[in-house]
Amino acid sequence: MSYEPENRTKQTLAEQVAEQILNDIVDKDLEVGAKIPNEFELAEKIGVGRGTIREAVKILVSREILTIRRGAGTFVSERQGLLDDPLGLCLLKDKTHLALDLLSIRLMLEPEISALAAANARPEQLKELGKLRDQVEELINRGEDHTHADILFHRQIAACSGNLVMEKLIPVIHSSITLFVDLTNARLKQETIDTHREITDCIVRKDPEGARCAMYMHLTVNRRLIKSLEGN
Amino acid sequence: MSYEPENRTKQTLAEQVAEQILNDIVDKDLEVGAKIPNEFELAEKIGVGRGTIREAVKILVSREILTIRRGAGTFVSERQGLLDDPLGLCLLKDKTHLALDLLSIRLMLEPEISALAAANARPEQLKELGKLRDQVEELINRGEDHTHADILFHRQIAACSGNLVMEKLIPVIHSSITLFVDLTNARLKQETIDTHREITDCIVRKDPEGARCAMYMHLTVNRRLIKSLEGN
Repeated sequence: MSYEPENRTKQTLAEQVAEQILNDIVDKDLEVGAKIPNEFELAEKIGVGRGTIREAVKILVSREILTIRRGAGTFVSERQGLLDDPLGLCLLKDKTHLALDLLSIRLMLEPEISALAAANARPEQLKELGKLRDQVEELINRGEDHTHADILFHRQIAACSGNLVMEKLIPVIHSSITLFVDLTNARLKQETIDTHREITDCIVRKDPEGARCAMYMHLTVNRRLIKSLEGN
Repeated sequence: MSYEPENRTKQTLAEQVAEQILNDIVDKDLEVGAKIPNEFELAEKIGVGRGTIREAVKILVSREILTIRRGAGTFVSERQGLLDDPLGLCLLKDKTHLALDLLSIRLMLEPEISALAAANARPEQLKELGKLRDQVEELINRGEDHTHADILFHRQIAACSGNLVMEKLIPVIHSSITLFVDLTNARLKQETIDTHREITDCIVRKDPEGARCAMYMHLTVNRRLIKSLEGN
């Protein structure tokens, strides 16, 4: 039942090689989309057979760290090691409970993140935040699905906070909501536009308390929606 | 750069079959360690070839949802879909920054979780919490590594809170610390024993405010240690 990394079986050679390739990507600051050396070159460099390299690459592909484009080569994945369901939430059965629990976590994290964003955001990050807020508004006004743009908006607030882990964690929590809980934001169009604007404005004018409050407001409206759907 | 689930390529047959096997595990409430039907039975039941079943099982093994024991069969994994590095933190380079950012997240979540645990814990959960606190103390007193026991203690507080996602999330954050940051808790032996006791006592006597404060104290001591190691 427990989460026991140390009880796992010893690393195979391919796993060790995968670790080595990964370290190389980190050490060399390879960007998303960068091409990594081919099988022959890696086999020669690391001093193992091509079969082992192929297996190691497969491991990194399954971890969403590398991606193979047929005929083009192997590249650092856009997904940056983030899996679809990294917390294993697919194994939880009660989806309404899940939706409320995910929102509880957002309530603990996002007001604080907004306050930190107001304190720490760099000018170019603010510009990007404004752009993402506009994108959400446009999609809402055109009557199109804004779920993904919404995730990017909240992820950018996390990026503005300067907390490296938050930038990884927020999309996980948001996409879990869209992956497992069939909630339509369609009902919250005007509220979303208004509160997104207020959050962005507070962050831009470096008002942490205002950013915290605006995010509480945003999440409270969302919570009310989930509660109203409960039992339907 | 962005996290775009909807841009992914269409599901292969094996992925669809994997989804079906997963749904079956959830619907039937199969417990950790439960054996699932063999290849022949699955192929017949789902109406696809054995090769597809084998591929689907491989996908679920790589997602840590199933585990294969050679000669014994295929089972629901103890890891419950939790991967070693679900947030892709291995790609972050600055490990001290990472340690402080992980602690910031703990500071946002764990005092609240402790308060919720004090409000919501069931008697059998409290019994387990006491047991885990004792285990950490014993290991510290014997001079052995208590990292893993420590994670289980904090995970149990999350379980006591009643938030399903928190129980998954807390071990991820804690194990990330031990996976990527070489921090020894050895220096905080007596503080750990004392604050763990205070946290547990407050949760047991249903004192949310006390549990919140005790957890803040615990994390503050941890934060001081990380700050003191900075630049070393």
